[in-house]
Amino acid sequence: MTTRDPLPGRSDEDFLVAFAQMSAFGATSDGGVDRQALTEPDIAQRRWFARLLESFGFRVGYDEIGNQFGLLELVPGAPYVLTGSHMDSQPTAGRFDGAYGVLASAFAASRVAGSLSPGSVKRNIAVVNWFNEEGSRFAPSMMGSAVYTGVLPLEIALATEDRKGVSVEQALSVAALTPPVPAFDISAYAEIHVEQGRLLEDAGVPIGLVTATWAARKYRFIVHGAQAHSGATVMIDRRDALLGAAMLIIAAREIADAFPGAVHTAVGQLDVYPNSPVVVASEVTLLLDIRAGDEASARKAARMLDERVAEIEDAAKVSIARVLTHSWGINPYQPDGVQLARAAAERIGMEATDILTVAGHDSVNLKALVPTVMLFVPSVAGVSHNTNERTDDEDLISGVLMLTEVLDDLARGALVRGATT
Amino acid sequence: MTTRDPLPGRSDEDFLVAFAQMSAFGATSDGGVDRQALTEPDIAQRRWFARLLESFGFRVGYDEIGNQFGLLELVPGAPYVLTGSHMDSQPTAGRFDGAYGVLASAFAASRVAGSLSPGSVKRNIAVVNWFNEEGSRFAPSMMGSAVYTGVLPLEIALATEDRKGVSVEQALSVAALTPPVPAFDISAYAEIHVEQGRLLEDAGVPIGLVTATWAARKYRFIVHGAQAHSGATVMIDRRDALLGAAMLIIAAREIADAFPGAVHTAVGQLDVYPNSPVVVASEVTLLLDIRAGDEASARKAARMLDERVAEIEDAAKVSIARVLTHSWGINPYQPDGVQLARAAAERIGMEATDILTVAGHDSVNLKALVPTVMLFVPSVAGVSHNTNERTDDEDLISGVLMLTEVLDDLARGALVRGATT
Repeated sequence: MTTRDPLPGRSDEDFLVAFAQMSAFGATSDGGVDRQALTEPDIAQRRWFARLLESFGFRVGYDEIGNQFGLLELVPGAPYVLTGSHMDSQPTAGRFDGAYGVLASAFAASRVAGSLSPGSVKRNIAVVNWFNEEGSRFAPSMMGSAVYTGVLPLEIALATEDRKGVSVEQALSVAALTPPVPAFDISAYAEIHVEQGRLLEDAGVPIGLVTATWAARKYRFIVHGAQAHSGATVMIDRRDALLGAAMLIIAAREIADAFPGAVHTAVGQLDVYPNSPVVVASEVTLLLDIRAGDEASARKAARMLDERVAEIEDAAKVSIARVLTHSWGINPYQPDGVQLARAAAERIGMEATDILTVAGHDSVNLKALVPTVMLFVPSVAGVSHNTNERTDDEDLISGVLMLTEVLDDLARGALVRGATT
Repeated sequence: MTTRDPLPGRSDEDFLVAFAQMSAFGATSDGGVDRQALTEPDIAQRRWFARLLESFGFRVGYDEIGNQFGLLELVPGAPYVLTGSHMDSQPTAGRFDGAYGVLASAFAASRVAGSLSPGSVKRNIAVVNWFNEEGSRFAPSMMGSAVYTGVLPLEIALATEDRKGVSVEQALSVAALTPPVPAFDISAYAEIHVEQGRLLEDAGVPIGLVTATWAARKYRFIVHGAQAHSGATVMIDRRDALLGAAMLIIAAREIADAFPGAVHTAVGQLDVYPNSPVVVASEVTLLLDIRAGDEASARKAARMLDERVAEIEDAAKVSIARVLTHSWGINPYQPDGVQLARAAAERIGMEATDILTVAGHDSVNLKALVPTVMLFVPSVAGVSHNTNERTDDEDLISGVLMLTEVLDDLARGALVRGATT
């Protein structure tokens, strides 16, 4: 499907070998990875990736929040096309989520740099491995790209602590990631990621052109009850915070069921206090998300949740506090970027389809700053955040090819910043 | 109500002063205590209690599982009447649960020893502060009395680890509780405890004569689902372990509601894996108890739970594993012991009523070994395992008086072992 001749060390086979090497960092026994931000495997993998980038001719450096960059200067003084994703993972995760996009970026950027004639190239190229996209160790998620784009102040990010009280600043100091990256401007951003759903697989299409994110509302709930002896206290005297929390979990599922295919809800994190076998819980904290493919459904689902909270307070004799921690509407990617990717797919004979992303990605932060292209490759059965996450080799290779074609356009000066948003 | 003249330092006022001193160990800012087994406050309190016992003339020593004894030899070679309870607590607990019974035992035993004539006393007297009754740091609960009575092998108890991986043996070694207690036989046991319910308060009666324990079935459930992206995964593909757990929590409450006043159920402890905001949980472990005031209700409630588990597996697309970790039927205290206490109450003009205990107590282990008397004093509003747990001073004093009268009988040789069970 392509006439581009990979450089030695940048072939499709080389890519699969490098991907297997990369997946050894934090590997779990069942084929997944545990590579939370700035843990030993994450740090070791960053050192490995720095050597790979250097072997491809990139200059490697880090910014103050620990984003890892590889710069390839082709046109002195010109802005950079940036491409990448994240290598950190959830505690027991698949090996493709994020990591695939970073390695694909390194290979695609290197192939473009090796094939463009000096006369046609208008931009420099940089690869990025964003810090802490997952947010499982340090909340919030997408921290590195949020600091890079100015959405999150650096000082707040550095002061963020994990559950053991270790701050990002302390963890970065231990990791000692050097040298600092020199200042550079970017003109565009491209990212490729596994879908984490099964629309592409169901449609039998190898590439998704992401047009927008789903709307989302994310809440932190604190259910307040009263400690009591879990055996002796008569039932009508109990104010059981865990019962109230259970009712919220079921309400969340019922709300999703009321909008088949249009609303997703979840409670993934829940902490009980005092969490003793013989004590009725006095406090339960949980994080509840509503995501929707259209804004009307998002609003209706949020209203249903409001009603259910009041009912649950009465039924479980608890009081429920709630903070809306994140909220965004349907959030489009620049149509020019989608069109550029569609044209690139046609040029190389790659079947592609428009798709929305339910999950957040670093590209959501980047597209507020520069024209951005976001691509998906299929996930087998849509399995994600699970050690059984898989993407077929053939799809991995197609994705690198597609990203290479997009970067080629961007390096030639497509998607002028400011004119396309 | 009594003609007994308290020894200097053993008056009712002295008791209340000592109780206030005792409540300072592990005191929380809101009037409760946090004194989990072999934490610093528990160890410091044991040293304080050793000094108090010694000032009352007891010889203090510890057995291999860390039970703290005070021996008072009145009749060389005779068996001992043992009385006590536990001073350890839940993480945020009231100051009366267990601790009241230990201090009441020390005062009552000392008063009896000081008033009996050499001709009338037939037994020696010992006070005990059982190790780890609560089981919140090291499971199971009632560990010290279980080892003492041979229900739990010493080696298993010593090897038990807390959540940080510290074993009982290691914690005991750090605490360095010396000297060892000499070997001694016991002929009877008496314990007084706060009710942890509100039957006595509702009836306006200061003393409960415990005739039996409620039946109980305690289960460990493990709900197995599959990790998935909490945003992107379509709802019908989700196998959400936390949803299954929430359904179990609600089922437990509905089962109790089906037997008003006759069945209590609870889920107090629940742990989620991986417990991430963006991952559908793959595994939730929870402890679920059914307690019942009669065995027919216990059986029916357990059968209802069986049915609900199968329904929940289907509804939440999860699989549910279950272990019955503890099970006991209605478990009577020796009728002779109840009768002895009833006669003692009449003798001193104390109103008393028969009562069942829902909670477990160390006396449940002891009554399998020797004739046992179990007494309750009221809990204000039945509040228990809560820093707001209260018992009025007047009721505390009445309880010491009642226990003193019971110990007096026992020290005179009442309740012959073997003849009464």
